[in-house]
Amino acid sequence: MAFRESLKNVVDKVDGAIGAVVMGFDGISIDEYVSEAALVDVQLMAIEYASLLKDIRKTIEILNSGEMQEVSITTDNYRVVARPVSDDFFLALVLEANGNFGKGRYLLKQSVPSIREALQ
Amino acid sequence: MAFRESLKNVVDKVDGAIGAVVMGFDGISIDEYVSEAALVDVQLMAIEYASLLKDIRKTIEILNSGEMQEVSITTDNYRVVARPVSDDFFLALVLEANGNFGKGRYLLKQSVPSIREALQ
Repeated sequence: MAFRESLKNVVDKVDGAIGAVVMGFDGISIDEYVSEAALVDVQLMAIEYASLLKDIRKTIEILNSGEMQEVSITTDNYRVVARPVSDDFFLALVLEANGNFGKGRYLLKQSVPSIREALQ
Repeated sequence: MAFRESLKNVVDKVDGAIGAVVMGFDGISIDEYVSEAALVDVQLMAIEYASLLKDIRKTIEILNSGEMQEVSITTDNYRVVARPVSDDFFLALVLEANGNFGKGRYLLKQSVPSIREALQ
């Protein structure tokens, strides 16, 4: 499955999902899918989060806590769930603050292997 | 209720909870409660996370995403859930990676008002 189909599959199946992106930790996007109703710049958001995720990974290393698995950040307006796909790339889902967080987390986790495979 | 009682209440009620802490974003702890079986330095962890939470809050401001509500970070070994209590302080819960994340998030959210009140 191409990246965009995997991303679309997650976004379409999760209530309140706005968009999903595969991106390098350097902030360079590989692919993204954004629902038509989206009023938010998912790519800009992902670029800012890429930098945070790099810092989070560094802290986790310092603390000897094993590998980073999932990061979720909720604000008044949005919720972002991210998972690393490899050392260089991550997958992120942006939801409305009242979107279906549980299903989003589940489908994001499920789609990591196919995204990882497509990256190779 | 004193801080420690609120923290103990959360830790004792959540399967897999290791400890909870009220801390300033400057990394100075107000109070903490750690379960007897804990093999992890909850305070050291919280100090490192305080710095991350400050960076996350800054990014959220840049993105005009409203206020930070909740941050959760999962690694191979642990899961940390944090919520700001005020502009200066946050509340964090450390769980085992397979701990009850949903209940932890719920009880952490529930205990914010009493912690906030006790800080005033």
